[in-house]
Amino acid sequence: MNEKQLAGERASDYIKDGMVVGLGTGSTAYYMLKALAQRVQEGLSIKGVATSQATTDLANKWGIPLVSIDDVSHIDVTIDGADEVDDHLNGIKGGGGALLYEKVVAKASKEVIWIVDAKKKVKTLGAFPLPIEVLPFGASHSIALFEQKGLQPQLRRSDEEIFITDSGHYIVDIQLPQDENVEAFAAWLDTLTGVIEHGLFLNMAHTLIVGEGDQVRIYKK
Amino acid sequence: MNEKQLAGERASDYIKDGMVVGLGTGSTAYYMLKALAQRVQEGLSIKGVATSQATTDLANKWGIPLVSIDDVSHIDVTIDGADEVDDHLNGIKGGGGALLYEKVVAKASKEVIWIVDAKKKVKTLGAFPLPIEVLPFGASHSIALFEQKGLQPQLRRSDEEIFITDSGHYIVDIQLPQDENVEAFAAWLDTLTGVIEHGLFLNMAHTLIVGEGDQVRIYKK
Repeated sequence: MNEKQLAGERASDYIKDGMVVGLGTGSTAYYMLKALAQRVQEGLSIKGVATSQATTDLANKWGIPLVSIDDVSHIDVTIDGADEVDDHLNGIKGGGGALLYEKVVAKASKEVIWIVDAKKKVKTLGAFPLPIEVLPFGASHSIALFEQKGLQPQLRRSDEEIFITDSGHYIVDIQLPQDENVEAFAAWLDTLTGVIEHGLFLNMAHTLIVGEGDQVRIYKK
Repeated sequence: MNEKQLAGERASDYIKDGMVVGLGTGSTAYYMLKALAQRVQEGLSIKGVATSQATTDLANKWGIPLVSIDDVSHIDVTIDGADEVDDHLNGIKGGGGALLYEKVVAKASKEVIWIVDAKKKVKTLGAFPLPIEVLPFGASHSIALFEQKGLQPQLRRSDEEIFITDSGHYIVDIQLPQDENVEAFAAWLDTLTGVIEHGLFLNMAHTLIVGEGDQVRIYKK
């Protein structure tokens, strides 16, 4: 069993009967969804809130019942992957392009659990590029600003085409400045007009489940 | 000639040959567009950047040449309406629902001129509801948060349908708290995940042209 599978399966243990569950996106969330589908088949009753079209498709295929985020007042627990997580359980997300819906779901959740393989656990965030979701209208101006700040922006593409998020925006991957406080940097990004959302998820995760070799390590905020 | 027409026509005088011009949206911008179209017909050479589909349609109809905001490195001057403007030339915009593109265009502009009729000039912002552009995914959670903060949110509708912006989002109109610093309030809105943009345009306008009776008053920042 690989590290992603170990973490994903362990996370599904946190889901109890009757819960509204935020369902993450990506290759580690895949294993959580698979384990959850198995438990649903055995009689577990939950309602899932998907964070992407990809996860919606998997849940439908595997018989996990879904509701819209706008049909629930809150989410009990959300289980999602991350691209990098530091010791404070701050992270970078958005490698799969679902960061906007993932952040909306996380903010509506009482508990957030992240599941990762060992190489995602880092001392300092920033080796992984930071995904920024930007408005297509005026995107070249957002990119020019990042360029001017030395952030090495790359407009994300999928094959030859510009990558489009589930909500119709672009993703620009930038380099997180290593000498800057991440909270201050996130606050700066928040002020930018063309920036819809960014992949810095600070003070959001409560629990981190790491698959490490053939073991699982659990960290609490 | 009404006040909107007076302001709109005067503003068109600020447009010089060869300029890239941001073209606002709404009933006052309408008169500026009409006067500009007349000058273009007489030989003025400019490139317009439209802030909405409605303005794109008018410009096409009246023969004002347009370029995409992403085809220009900057905009020389933008002329746009506002719903309320105070003595510091801070304003509320978004009554027409075009605030997001209007703000992107304003931020890319060297000079921003607002055109209003006299009743839009106010001592304190906030009699006019503040439009917030929100993500449809999770919009009920944004609305619940505004409700909880006493901001009296109203999801904007057009006839029976939910109003959809040119970029596919919703508008929620809220009451600006009268006892709060607008800069701090804008900064709080910027931090909210489901909030795409808001109608507080602070430190953006350089010039305000007010139609007042049969006169025009001009204010500079």
